[in-house]
Amino acid sequence: MSRRSGGRAARQALRAAAPPAEARAVWPGLAGGSYNPLSESAMQAVFDAALDLLERLGMGQAPPEFIERVTAAGGSIDEHGRLLFPSDLVRHTIDIAAKEFTLHSFDGQSGLDIGGDRVYYSTAGAGVMMLDHETKRFRHSTLQDVYDTGRLVDTLDNIDMYIRTVVARDMETARMLDLNWAYAVMASTSKPVGTSMFEPGHVHEIIAMYDMALGGEGEFAKRPFALANNTFVVPPLRFAEESALSLAEQARVGIPITLLSAGQAGATSPAALAGSLAQALAECLAALVCVNLISPGHPCVMGMWPFVSDLRTGAMSGGSGEEAVLNAASAQLINWIGLPSGVAAGMADSKLPDNQAGHEKALTVGLAAHAGSNIVFESAGMLASIMAGSHEALVIDNDMIGAVARTVRGIEIDEGTLSTQVIEEVIRGEGHFLGHEQTLSMMQSEYVYPLVGDRLSPDDWVDAGAKSVEETAHDYVTRTLASHLPMHLDPSRDAAIREAFPIELPPLASMRG
Amino acid sequence: MSRRSGGRAARQALRAAAPPAEARAVWPGLAGGSYNPLSESAMQAVFDAALDLLERLGMGQAPPEFIERVTAAGGSIDEHGRLLFPSDLVRHTIDIAAKEFTLHSFDGQSGLDIGGDRVYYSTAGAGVMMLDHETKRFRHSTLQDVYDTGRLVDTLDNIDMYIRTVVARDMETARMLDLNWAYAVMASTSKPVGTSMFEPGHVHEIIAMYDMALGGEGEFAKRPFALANNTFVVPPLRFAEESALSLAEQARVGIPITLLSAGQAGATSPAALAGSLAQALAECLAALVCVNLISPGHPCVMGMWPFVSDLRTGAMSGGSGEEAVLNAASAQLINWIGLPSGVAAGMADSKLPDNQAGHEKALTVGLAAHAGSNIVFESAGMLASIMAGSHEALVIDNDMIGAVARTVRGIEIDEGTLSTQVIEEVIRGEGHFLGHEQTLSMMQSEYVYPLVGDRLSPDDWVDAGAKSVEETAHDYVTRTLASHLPMHLDPSRDAAIREAFPIELPPLASMRG
Repeated sequence: MSRRSGGRAARQALRAAAPPAEARAVWPGLAGGSYNPLSESAMQAVFDAALDLLERLGMGQAPPEFIERVTAAGGSIDEHGRLLFPSDLVRHTIDIAAKEFTLHSFDGQSGLDIGGDRVYYSTAGAGVMMLDHETKRFRHSTLQDVYDTGRLVDTLDNIDMYIRTVVARDMETARMLDLNWAYAVMASTSKPVGTSMFEPGHVHEIIAMYDMALGGEGEFAKRPFALANNTFVVPPLRFAEESALSLAEQARVGIPITLLSAGQAGATSPAALAGSLAQALAECLAALVCVNLISPGHPCVMGMWPFVSDLRTGAMSGGSGEEAVLNAASAQLINWIGLPSGVAAGMADSKLPDNQAGHEKALTVGLAAHAGSNIVFESAGMLASIMAGSHEALVIDNDMIGAVARTVRGIEIDEGTLSTQVIEEVIRGEGHFLGHEQTLSMMQSEYVYPLVGDRLSPDDWVDAGAKSVEETAHDYVTRTLASHLPMHLDPSRDAAIREAFPIELPPLASMRG
Repeated sequence: MSRRSGGRAARQALRAAAPPAEARAVWPGLAGGSYNPLSESAMQAVFDAALDLLERLGMGQAPPEFIERVTAAGGSIDEHGRLLFPSDLVRHTIDIAAKEFTLHSFDGQSGLDIGGDRVYYSTAGAGVMMLDHETKRFRHSTLQDVYDTGRLVDTLDNIDMYIRTVVARDMETARMLDLNWAYAVMASTSKPVGTSMFEPGHVHEIIAMYDMALGGEGEFAKRPFALANNTFVVPPLRFAEESALSLAEQARVGIPITLLSAGQAGATSPAALAGSLAQALAECLAALVCVNLISPGHPCVMGMWPFVSDLRTGAMSGGSGEEAVLNAASAQLINWIGLPSGVAAGMADSKLPDNQAGHEKALTVGLAAHAGSNIVFESAGMLASIMAGSHEALVIDNDMIGAVARTVRGIEIDEGTLSTQVIEEVIRGEGHFLGHEQTLSMMQSEYVYPLVGDRLSPDDWVDAGAKSVEETAHDYVTRTLASHLPMHLDPSRDAAIREAFPIELPPLASMRG
């Protein structure tokens, strides 16, 4: 096994390519991989430890289908009833597993090529509250929040994908929640989306709904625009029963899956960061084996999300330096193995979109991106260690992601960009670069401008009302939610869906006015 | 020329070492270098372009001493009166230049070994205002602010060094400013400090003052505890006359110097990021040649600080992604050349210590540190693109730096930390890691805890007053400034200094009560 080749070459080729027509300075899928927290031998050691864990300890509480398939492929059940995975089976699975896949968008315009060193930014969840901007207090999150968050994402250039960030607590059953989640994310944005599905039966209902939305049976499988985030494990090394059953159905219906392991160091995984890496990798590999036995080459994202505890209290700490380096290392490790990676970053511990939230988010997202995480999950909109969502945080985070993406793009070095000729012209001429042709030509292509971030002089800032970025973001939220109503879902198909499923979101037509 | 060896080996050796007695999870001088934004060939191209600029265009406005020394060493004056530096002279200078040096602390307890891949965090400046926490408005900065900022730094674990962050605008002459700056930084903290000196004569006065503080003539040269930040250049490629004259005196008196080039891309350096790198490197190398001709092997930090413009307005943008990647690339480049590096990061554009400031600071500081900047300047306390200081920002930034340092430390991977045995014990036993011996033993050694950052649950946070991190930081500022009075400066020496120099800061004894 070796680090997949071509990372740097691909990055350099990408840098050499002209920016797209609209001449943005950043674009989806910029190549990461310049940050390597682990040495090659360290990665090998973590991989070996994960194989050892799977071979000796395996997974507890495996559903019958997994037991049947894994034992038929060479695995076994030990005296504790745990399902053991031989190393050869795991290695073979890695060989046949999908290395890349396309996650489509609903409108076919903005699909994501997941894999390689390409980096995309997605929300994820799922919080149970929303922060109210005016009162600075939390309230229960609702289905309308799920829809509104998606509408905001639909307008934010640097967020490539929308996975529901909060629980619709106004839904009364798990089925109502799953169906309405799936509906709301799809209806809210034409970007690729994602959700989770608590029961296996819901998987089939959701795919039927998505088929209707796209115009007929089998359409979703042709261009899957949604990702299923599946938390298949109760760490350490034990399957979560319902989620594991859903996993099998997701493999069968053809929806791309994030195999999500979120052990919490010091609680459900080792306090030693290295150990929490090894355990999370073992868990994700176990799920990868099971999915590939059902559907060889099924599109999967290795969702190593090693969480961290504040050991003083046992509470989760999503915004810590430990969290930042653990998830970046996870991305590096999965990319080195050669599989699609998706880690967690942007999980601020702060309860407000304040300075603490800002620095926690930028460090975690920045390092995950530079480590090459194919999907940087949780990258926008979450607070309170992902217990809560915030529209204002989402909008500010979009600026942060734009800056991160600019650093991921890097610096193109060639004879032209080195500008020795330009410097000579300036020195022999006007003495400054302000009016030089190069400066004017690079205004859009070399520089990213924030949507809500402030760059005024102190005096101008006071004249403009001396607003914090939270206040400016709130203005954006208010304006956008009052005006932006995505139109990609055909009204007649929408009506048919509402006939067939108990959709609780008010009819889109009524919202459209 | 090759990348200096031993970076990774040194880092791994450091990781393998036991934490110091106090068992902190981070410590000064952790090894960076895991983030490499530039390829080796790209660095070579930038270096070659810088040599070309120095050979063909050289530096304008060179003072007579520099002209004399450089032409005696093989350089020449061209028909425009510019001082040209042959490549051989530059290469020879790099060979003989100091690769590492110790920056002492006043009390001899916390010196910094500048060089290698070791990363330290320093403030810098110099703003002309302070943000008032209560009113959220700016006021002129004063000498008391210089002293108070230093007292705060003295208490903040993750800030290794204090360079004055703001101008004492209540000083009436350049001499009063230079002397009182130098006095206030020394008196405020026993950590290594730094300041700037506007005129060559002030250099000698300040060293005389520092000698008195340490107990006699020649003492400062034996254990220099202060760094001179010298902005010797008016970009593009022109010496700043007074600063260049001060540079010569600083070389003569033996004070370590940061050779500081802060061209602003799109204004005083090329809009193309690559070009601004090449120009800044050329400028710093020119100064390095001049200093080493006066004092071979003089301790210098290569202060490549490529700044960025917001090209919509021409204003500086210190918090942008462009700024983050440029300074990180500068650190990587200087480390590759083999010289001590010190870049700028933490320069938020935001006017408040809000979410924007947080994400701007963490991205810039995080990437500079991982690129291996020996000194991450501007890392704490600045707002408004370094036009203003903020005590609250300083305290919050200390938390941010702690998290960054934790990621720089990285993840130690070995048989013990991989924890397969611990995982087995937990699976066969209690099922969770909370009470495991490993968890308890790693509480301090593996995890960093924030000073003002909040990790309470949403309910507990509301019960605790629902404070933003700015409010908590303000409480810390108020408490600390009311109680923390550094005692390292001997009262009789202090009295003698006040006899000899026009020190405007109230007598320390009176502040000590």
